[in-house]
Amino acid sequence: MHLYDYAKGLVLEAGNHLRQWMTEAIDIETKSNPNDLVTNVDKAVEQFLVDQIKETYPQHQIIGEEGHGHNLTTLEGITWVIDPIDGTLNFVHQGANFAISVGVFKNGEPYAGFVYDVMADTLYHAKAGFGAYRNETLLERIPDTQLAQSLVGMNANWLAGKKITPVLMPIIRDSRSSRAYGSAALEIVHVATGQLGAYITPRLQPWDFAGGMIILEEVGGIATNFVGQPLAITHPDSVIVGNKEIHKTILQEYMKPHEDFLAPWHEHYQG
Amino acid sequence: MHLYDYAKGLVLEAGNHLRQWMTEAIDIETKSNPNDLVTNVDKAVEQFLVDQIKETYPQHQIIGEEGHGHNLTTLEGITWVIDPIDGTLNFVHQGANFAISVGVFKNGEPYAGFVYDVMADTLYHAKAGFGAYRNETLLERIPDTQLAQSLVGMNANWLAGKKITPVLMPIIRDSRSSRAYGSAALEIVHVATGQLGAYITPRLQPWDFAGGMIILEEVGGIATNFVGQPLAITHPDSVIVGNKEIHKTILQEYMKPHEDFLAPWHEHYQG
Repeated sequence: MHLYDYAKGLVLEAGNHLRQWMTEAIDIETKSNPNDLVTNVDKAVEQFLVDQIKETYPQHQIIGEEGHGHNLTTLEGITWVIDPIDGTLNFVHQGANFAISVGVFKNGEPYAGFVYDVMADTLYHAKAGFGAYRNETLLERIPDTQLAQSLVGMNANWLAGKKITPVLMPIIRDSRSSRAYGSAALEIVHVATGQLGAYITPRLQPWDFAGGMIILEEVGGIATNFVGQPLAITHPDSVIVGNKEIHKTILQEYMKPHEDFLAPWHEHYQG
Repeated sequence: MHLYDYAKGLVLEAGNHLRQWMTEAIDIETKSNPNDLVTNVDKAVEQFLVDQIKETYPQHQIIGEEGHGHNLTTLEGITWVIDPIDGTLNFVHQGANFAISVGVFKNGEPYAGFVYDVMADTLYHAKAGFGAYRNETLLERIPDTQLAQSLVGMNANWLAGKKITPVLMPIIRDSRSSRAYGSAALEIVHVATGQLGAYITPRLQPWDFAGGMIILEEVGGIATNFVGQPLAITHPDSVIVGNKEIHKTILQEYMKPHEDFLAPWHEHYQG
């Protein structure tokens, strides 16, 4: 079977299992950060995906949120980057508005992206070079927009007295309004559908952005870190996602004036 | 026909028209504030509701966002408080995530509330004293939660260097995380379903909160302004909505220390 079709079917199947497992009791554990809940369902979904991939493609590499492949030494061949539940707080508190996110890379280059809004049963998917889809509908290329006429995805947490707050505050002040949905993968695809003009956040893991990034690129959107570098699946990073125009504005007018702060902050924060 | 059933049918019918009118071109006008877009569809939906109500119940009073009944002198009898599209920016930018909000009051007291998420075809509704429903499902009473374990609805705009920012910032800092959906009516019903622990915003018009407030009260939630006064349909106000425990915490621990600022600010802001 073609790898793209296999991956698409696998993500949908994982979503079916997830909806079933949800009805069973959710046993919440707390990782190092109390805001970073992880549930048995997270782990079960990642294990399901890993088991299936390893059985079908034993030579493929896998990076997963719940502990798989965090020390890869090469990106040769096929690498899967998996977030079994992106938006765990939404999963726990809302029982909705979370996604399975999967990015597939060939020799480190984007090959295919999948973001599955499980409870809405909406699959965003793209094969690099062949356009992006919401279920069976081809997504149009996203138009350029001005910041002042755009909705910007950003969590108010980042404006609540953090070191990065003075950098981010003017962007929200100058936008039309802000939104916060609590799932990076879904917020990136909301940019890809034009529902948000941009999405900005100071730190994401590769599994948070890998799937969405590939979908976004297929509709002409741009994703970089706060200092304009491309995102990589080998390390966490700050993230600006947007249509070309708004991305350029944010980077040049709002980030560049802070480069003396951002460069060292960024290096430190990237870890 | 019973007034409650009539109102419920009317809201659903307005939603049907709205979905149809959406497919026609949206002709955007700009009111005094460029963030306050109003569309032909807003006006058409309000006019439809007003015409229907006036034909069936000529003696009823109507307060509507798009200009109806802004100078009522009495709340005797039945008063309808209508927002034809709550979340106009979402309507314009996303084509989803907006609601028709209707509150019905008898001699100024809550009688029935309706918040219709039009594109999701989900109607939240309540007759005062008889419980609240999501479509045909009875909503449970909402449990008490602690701020640190709760999602709080607040738009990042309010933390972007506003006068009220120092009051609101600590609430978000001490919460589990924040969300911003861009429709006050939907955010209030998200509190009523337990998907948010609280929703806080410095200024809403009566048509933004009237429908949701009645639904919320049926599941044991509380709505007041920032200085603990009940909301009234006669004037705009600041709004704290939450389960009993979190509402009390926000009011006593986060608002009360600022009462020297809030009382005069509030009087001024309330207009």
